Amino acid sequence: MNSGILIVISGFSGAGKGTLVNRLVTEYDNYALSISMTTRKPRVGEVNGKSYFFVTHEEFEHEIKQDGLLEYASYCDNYYGTPKFYVEEQLKAGKDVILEIEVQGALQIKEKYPDALLLFVTPPSAKVLKERLESRGTETKDVIDKRMRTACKEAEVMKRYDFIVVNDDLDKCVKDTHEMIRAAHYASNRSDDFIQFLKEDLLKLS
Amino acid sequence: MNSGILIVISGFSGAGKGTLVNRLVTEYDNYALSISMTTRKPRVGEVNGKSYFFVTHEEFEHEIKQDGLLEYASYCDNYYGTPKFYVEEQLKAGKDVILEIEVQGALQIKEKYPDALLLFVTPPSAKVLKERLESRGTETKDVIDKRMRTACKEAEVMKRYDFIVVNDDLDKCVKDTHEMIRAAHYASNRSDDFIQFLKEDLLKLS
Repeated sequence: MNSGILIVISGFSGAGKGTLVNRLVTEYDNYALSISMTTRKPRVGEVNGKSYFFVTHEEFEHEIKQDGLLEYASYCDNYYGTPKFYVEEQLKAGKDVILEIEVQGALQIKEKYPDALLLFVTPPSAKVLKERLESRGTETKDVIDKRMRTACKEAEVMKRYDFIVVNDDLDKCVKDTHEMIRAAHYASNRSDDFIQFLKEDLLKLS
Repeated sequence: MNSGILIVISGFSGAGKGTLVNRLVTEYDNYALSISMTTRKPRVGEVNGKSYFFVTHEEFEHEIKQDGLLEYASYCDNYYGTPKFYVEEQLKAGKDVILEIEVQGALQIKEKYPDALLLFVTPPSAKVLKERLESRGTETKDVIDKRMRTACKEAEVMKRYDFIVVNDDLDKCVKDTHEMIRAAHYASNRSDDFIQFLKEDLLKLS
């Protein structure tokens, strides 16, 4: 029960994933944030190995060939992906590694890593979701409508996540999420080593 | 997410199940303890509907025929079982209903109620288990040896429980168990109603 859990967080645009993840990483010391790898150029202020791992197209394609990525996708002529080495290093160090990622990538990861913990973040209702998107004041009506339609599609796969995180009151949401992750450490499918130890230990003493 | 969860607690003799269950019921108000039905005669001080539901052989067999029991077994010429009506009444009222039961009964229940939450309580090691059995000072060496051999067999099915509850420090164990149960309310397989509501709600607004 000493190694960390790979935690995948998805949810509707406007659900508050980013804020939730920031709060978890800031308030508890068991979390590490996964760092993505990308071929796009760094923007002003972005630091290599902190914001992203910035690499060339050739380096990225080399990683793909080496099976060095947990998942990846291509977007606007650039690659984005999750490097395995950093995640695995943090898991071994006992950190619960958080990946904030869209639903297709999340389900890819669950196939490769059945012990990953998938959390889906949602507001308590469609009305609240729409209000949050509108209150940002930065998106046009068209963009908001598109996000609501995307949410409809994403809702179809919620069932394949392990937990549904309702973000109504943020403080409660942060606390609940942290409890779900703590509890997940005791799940029997993540306790193989302990169960094996205990079986052998009982045999010796009986 | 408003109805309760059926919680099945098993574990090695000497693991501290009884103490754990008592602490949960005493310290938190979301729990109800399942009451067993039996054909054995009440002992001094035992109250019908509190310690057990005391019934005749005919009444018990009538319950079996009516499919009125979650599980039952016969022991020393008496029947012991878990009546459905009480459990279902408490679940509907939003209580998390705790059933302390041995492994065979627990696995029977998981087959009938896949949403039941199965917790297996264990000390951190075989040595601690043996020490706890010895420290009771009431059992002979033969009985303790038999319990250790039973533990070996029970360890084979630990994997089929949802969570492994390590009872090392009791206060921590009570808190951890309560967190596992709280978290379980957010599991996607127990959120069917909310997911369905949200899907329809999103369709209406997009």
